[in-house]
Amino acid sequence: MNPVVALLSDFGRRDPYVGMMKMAILEICPGATILDLSHEVEAQGVRQGAFLLAASLPYLPEGTVVAAVVDPGVGTGRRALAARIGGRFLVGPDNGLFSWGWQSVDPRDRAAYELDQDEFWHAPVSDTFHGRDVFAPVAAHLAKGMEIARLGSLLDRIKLLPDLDPTPVAEGMRLRIEHIDRFGNLVTNLAAGDVPSDGDGLKFSVGEAITVGVRRNYDAAERLIAVVGGLGYLELAAPGGSAAALTGAGIGDAVIMSSSGD
Amino acid sequence: MNPVVALLSDFGRRDPYVGMMKMAILEICPGATILDLSHEVEAQGVRQGAFLLAASLPYLPEGTVVAAVVDPGVGTGRRALAARIGGRFLVGPDNGLFSWGWQSVDPRDRAAYELDQDEFWHAPVSDTFHGRDVFAPVAAHLAKGMEIARLGSLLDRIKLLPDLDPTPVAEGMRLRIEHIDRFGNLVTNLAAGDVPSDGDGLKFSVGEAITVGVRRNYDAAERLIAVVGGLGYLELAAPGGSAAALTGAGIGDAVIMSSSGD
Amino acid sequence: MNPVVALLSDFGRRDPYVGMMKMAILEICPGATILDLSHEVEAQGVRQGAFLLAASLPYLPEGTVVAAVVDPGVGTGRRALAARIGGRFLVGPDNGLFSWGWQSVDPRDRAAYELDQDEFWHAPVSDTFHGRDVFAPVAAHLAKGMEIARLGSLLDRIKLLPDLDPTPVAEGMRLRIEHIDRFGNLVTNLAAGDVPSDGDGLKFSVGEAITVGVRRNYDAAERLIAVVGGLGYLELAAPGGSAAALTGAGIGDAVIMSSSGD
Repeated sequence: MNPVVALLSDFGRRDPYVGMMKMAILEICPGATILDLSHEVEAQGVRQGAFLLAASLPYLPEGTVVAAVVDPGVGTGRRALAARIGGRFLVGPDNGLFSWGWQSVDPRDRAAYELDQDEFWHAPVSDTFHGRDVFAPVAAHLAKGMEIARLGSLLDRIKLLPDLDPTPVAEGMRLRIEHIDRFGNLVTNLAAGDVPSDGDGLKFSVGEAITVGVRRNYDAAERLIAVVGGLGYLELAAPGGSAAALTGAGIGDAVIMSSSGD
Repeated sequence: MNPVVALLSDFGRRDPYVGMMKMAILEICPGATILDLSHEVEAQGVRQGAFLLAASLPYLPEGTVVAAVVDPGVGTGRRALAARIGGRFLVGPDNGLFSWGWQSVDPRDRAAYELDQDEFWHAPVSDTFHGRDVFAPVAAHLAKGMEIARLGSLLDRIKLLPDLDPTPVAEGMRLRIEHIDRFGNLVTNLAAGDVPSDGDGLKFSVGEAITVGVRRNYDAAERLIAVVGGLGYLELAAPGGSAAALTGAGIGDAVIMSSSGD
Repeated sequence: MNPVVALLSDFGRRDPYVGMMKMAILEICPGATILDLSHEVEAQGVRQGAFLLAASLPYLPEGTVVAAVVDPGVGTGRRALAARIGGRFLVGPDNGLFSWGWQSVDPRDRAAYELDQDEFWHAPVSDTFHGRDVFAPVAAHLAKGMEIARLGSLLDRIKLLPDLDPTPVAEGMRLRIEHIDRFGNLVTNLAAGDVPSDGDGLKFSVGEAITVGVRRNYDAAERLIAVVGGLGYLELAAPGGSAAALTGAGIGDAVIMSSSGD
């Protein structure tokens, strides 16, 4: 079976950066199947990258290696990591990008290493492109079957962002818009499993816009609905249109979830 | 030989949706070669997707499986399909997306099945992302060699859009702009084989703009030309510029083809 | 080992053009690993494509075949080429696209052939899409191991753009912005190896904006910095922002490098 290497970055697609990472991987692990999760994370959007990574992780085949590069601190003192999370591997900067993937498994099922063995990197290492020169080669070595412990030194902890969960407020819960997708859906941090079972009794407000109830799919006559989307989180959507355009909301904005009786 | 799975959707590239579909395919068929036809179909643009699918089909290697997902009705009662069209396979929603590919072959060379065997799907199935949970797994099973008849129940007919062909009008023929490409070329529904052989005698009007004759390539001094493009359909192009910007025309707009003597 | 075919074009990603090229490659060389360098070269931006190709070339695994298609003259008399450059192969139009890759190796380590053996092309050949019908099939035959000399006739010379190097001017050197990347970094034609070693003594001006010194990475408090970027060339960057937006500069604009004492 071909090893799978998945890539996530804020590199976009107009530049050869992603192609260069893939070439660095194929140089070391020619049989790798390489696929893209997303390269359209907002420039330097570490939190958005962490969210997309956590949402994608459950769908990665066992043994997949992810090279994740949203790395405004490249070339500075920030650590470089390889981590085992359950049966999958993540490689990237130690800036919080792995936070919620890391926290999604039992502590006994994970381990992180600071990358300090430069024999496994591309030489010379650019100070501005560790994606190609450090993370891609290390991911390729992992894909080829190398023991993760040979790549670096075991760490006690990694850098973590604040918890992803919604925040209790007077009216109910404050959700946060973590991602806006191609359809203009406003994807919040309320995981599918945490959506209250009596969805009909819920009200969601974003700015002036309000919707009541949780729908099962996008097929609705309402202008704005709440629905569990493909990423596994509650989102606000405008059937046939864009909830982002309709509401003017952006990443980081609040969605208030309250009882519809209020 | 590696089986080829080709993807077409309106998912765009900023979200992990396409990557999730690829992972679902690789989970079942690790040796698959996966390639993208386009993920930039306009959001919920079923007709545009059907056009691009029909234009691409002749270039797919025999045995290729296409997972095509432009699916505004996901999670509703709309049927899910797998179809054999000549030596190729299409998987996706029964909403007209397969219309012109389906009609391009002799009825004896095609068959369609309603997907109703959920043992071949991802469990649980999301109500909002059948691309990942139904169509990708089914495509992977086909790529692996499974008999299409095991995946569902034979259908008499599938949902078809109106014919693709241009419409006769008083002045000549009314073509329809089906797609606008990256270069701003206005791609119509007039197939290369249906372009009248005396191209010099033809006039094409889109809004106020007019061009006379059919050119062989884009190397022309005129502001607007008609030419058979890479998709195999007549298109209006602005050499060195964008016909879309020049004319202000959009998808769905009419191009009138008449005799240049008029 | 799977042969690697890398693609560079101005086709963008919204159309099936790139997918069609990949299908044409897989038809001939089913085991190929295909990857994208960039398809977002500006429409008909031959010089920008040549720059990105030259910057990527050193990172391609030995034996890689590149199909590069920025081809405003498709279907006219311009020649079609296959070239061996060191241990790699390039296929595309003879319009200058290969200039600086070609010049990067010793003349004894390169050879170019005019493609004139149509048995190795797709039939029929479209007049508007040689990427799919000529260059992709030829790249696939090379990837499969065919002798390059069988594909065409040896050439004495290929079309070359003017030298890439910066130009001496009264104040010092005039650099040219060759590419603007996703982050808004202004990538110039000053190669990393040609950056004067006393970077602290250098001043860079683009329009009204000025920065002094050469930084090692993007971690800086200044609004505008000069740094060697991931493509291997000096670029102007705005840490945490976009140098393109900050300065209003575009591709083709000048950056003046002078002594900071002036």
